[in-house]
Amino acid sequence: MVIIAVTAGNNWERRKMILKIINNKNVIYSFKPEMDFIDQVKPGETFKIMTNDCFLSQIKSEDQDYYNIDNSKINSATGPIFVEEATPGDLLKVQILGIDIDSKGVAVIAPNEGVLGNKVDKPLIRIIPIANNYFKFGDHLMPIKPMIGVIGVAPSHEDGECPTEIPWKHGGNMDTNDIRENSTIYLPVRQNGGLLAIGDCHAVMGDGETGVSGCEIAAEITLKVDLIKNKEINWPLIETDNDTMVVASGDTLEESVYNAVDEATKHLQRGLEVSWGDAYILSSLVVDLRISQVVNQKKTVRAVIPKSLISTDLIINSL
Amino acid sequence: MVIIAVTAGNNWERRKMILKIINNKNVIYSFKPEMDFIDQVKPGETFKIMTNDCFLSQIKSEDQDYYNIDNSKINSATGPIFVEEATPGDLLKVQILGIDIDSKGVAVIAPNEGVLGNKVDKPLIRIIPIANNYFKFGDHLMPIKPMIGVIGVAPSHEDGECPTEIPWKHGGNMDTNDIRENSTIYLPVRQNGGLLAIGDCHAVMGDGETGVSGCEIAAEITLKVDLIKNKEINWPLIETDNDTMVVASGDTLEESVYNAVDEATKHLQRGLEVSWGDAYILSSLVVDLRISQVVNQKKTVRAVIPKSLISTDLIINSL
Repeated sequence: MVIIAVTAGNNWERRKMILKIINNKNVIYSFKPEMDFIDQVKPGETFKIMTNDCFLSQIKSEDQDYYNIDNSKINSATGPIFVEEATPGDLLKVQILGIDIDSKGVAVIAPNEGVLGNKVDKPLIRIIPIANNYFKFGDHLMPIKPMIGVIGVAPSHEDGECPTEIPWKHGGNMDTNDIRENSTIYLPVRQNGGLLAIGDCHAVMGDGETGVSGCEIAAEITLKVDLIKNKEINWPLIETDNDTMVVASGDTLEESVYNAVDEATKHLQRGLEVSWGDAYILSSLVVDLRISQVVNQKKTVRAVIPKSLISTDLIINSL
Repeated sequence: MVIIAVTAGNNWERRKMILKIINNKNVIYSFKPEMDFIDQVKPGETFKIMTNDCFLSQIKSEDQDYYNIDNSKINSATGPIFVEEATPGDLLKVQILGIDIDSKGVAVIAPNEGVLGNKVDKPLIRIIPIANNYFKFGDHLMPIKPMIGVIGVAPSHEDGECPTEIPWKHGGNMDTNDIRENSTIYLPVRQNGGLLAIGDCHAVMGDGETGVSGCEIAAEITLKVDLIKNKEINWPLIETDNDTMVVASGDTLEESVYNAVDEATKHLQRGLEVSWGDAYILSSLVVDLRISQVVNQKKTVRAVIPKSLISTDLIINSL
C-alpha cells in the first residue's frame, strides 16, 4: 500500500514516500521489561501500524455466546517496535498523524463488568456499522471520535510485567480520549529501544468507558516517533492543541487523582519556577481533572494543564 | 440598584423593569427539610441574589492566621427563597442569566485539606485581583470562568439536614463547573416552595477543586426560576448549550460514578424508549463522565449526555 505523507526536505518541498507498514499479526498481551521486538524504526520516522479490535475479531455476530470467546486474546497490542537510539531516561514522543478505522465495530455489556455490572443479567453484544464518520446504533446516527486505547512501552524492572489490560506509568490500557489524531503522546523510555506497542482502538468511547467497552474496532494508525534525550517523566503526557495532560492511574479513582495532581503540580512548580504551594494553588484554579476510564483493573484520570498557562515545551525542557 | 432586564411582553416588546434584589445578609449553613424563608418569588420571575465568598469575607490579607477564621461561617448560602406554587414532586428550573463577581478573590491551601493535603506543611493564602475578565496570579494573567459552588433546595425528610458543605440529591455544594452563566439547573422540589439557596461562587476553579478552594469570591447572580409540575428526578440536572448533565455525589468517587451512570442510563432508557441494556451501551459510547470536585465530604461527578443524542426536553418530558 502506498501512503502519501508530507515530510520536510532540505528545501521544505513536499514529496511522496512509501511508509513502512507494520501489520497486526505480531502482537503482545503483556508489556514486559524484556521483550523481543518485531520491527524497528528510526527517530523522526513516520510509519503505519495496524491494530486488531480488542477481541481479536472473535465477535462477529450479536447472537454468539460471549462466554465462548477466548479471554487470553483480549486487548492485543501490535509490537513491540524498537526505536533506534532510545535509551533509558529518554522520552519517546509519538505523534498520532491519523487513525483509519474499520467499517464495523462492536460493543458489549456483561454481568459483573463495568460500572453497572451488578444490574446486567446477561451479556449483550451490539455490532455497530460505521460510515461517513458516523456510527449507527438503532435509529441513532452519532459522530465517531476514533482514539487509541492501548499505547505503551516496556516498563521498568521495578514496575515489572504489566498485562495489556492494565494502565500504568509505561502507558498501556489508558483508554483515554485525547489519544487521537493530532495528539502527541510522551512515554518514558525504560529499556533500550523503548519497545512501543499499540492496540485497542475505539471508534467512539465516552469518558469513563462505563459499560466496559467502547466501540471496539480494528484500525490503521499513522504515527511519527521522535526521541527527547535525557528527560524523565513519572507518568505519560498527552499534548493536544490547547493542553498538556498528565495521565495517571491507580487502584482507585482517588489514588489516580492523587498521582495526577501530584505530577501536574510538580510540572507547574518546575516549569513556572514558582513555589510548590503556589503551583498547587494554581493547579486547583486552572488544571481540570478528567476521568479517562473507570472499568479496568486500575483506573485512569488525566490532569489537564492549559497551554495558555505553560507550554508543553516548557514543561518538558524543565524536566 | 436598577437592573435592566429583557422580558417578553404580550407583544414581545423589550421593556425595562426593576428586578428584586435579595441581599447577602440572610444566609444558611445547612439545607434542612424545614426552614424559614427570607423572601419569595413567582414562577417565571427574574431576580438578583447577592452571595458572600465562602469565608464570609473573613480573609482579607495573605498574612493573616488561617486557623483564626471562624469555621462556623464557611460556605454560606443566601436564602432560602420560597417559590410560589412549588410543591413536592415538581422540578425547579433555575436559569443562570448572569454572574457578576467582585474585584478580588481568595484561594488557600492547608495541611490535610485537598488532594495533596499530606504534603502541605502550613496554610498558604493568596489574594487574587480580578479585572477585565482576567485574574492575576503572580506574573500570570488567566481568564476567569465564574461559576456557582452551592445551589440547592430543602431536602426530603428521608435525606434530612445537609450542611452547605455537602453535595447531595438536593444540590448543595456540588462545586460543578457548568453551573455558570447561560446554564439551567433543575432541582427536585421536596418541600413546599422549594426553598432555594445559593452561595460559594468562584471566579475560576479547575474541575476537581483539587487544592480545596477555587478562587472564592462574592457575587451578584441574576436568575430566573420556573416550575415544571409533577416531574421527579433523583439527582440534579444541568442544561448547557450542547449537553444535559446528571450531577451525582457519593462518599467515594466510585460511588458518585455509580450514581451518575445509573441515573443517566435511566434517562436514556426512558427518553429514547430503548431497552435498559441498549441505554447502558449507548451511555458507554457517548456519555462523558466528568469530575466536579474531589475535596468535599462527598465527591461529585457529572454524566454528560449530548443533546445531539437526546434533548433535555425529551429527558424531562419522559420522567
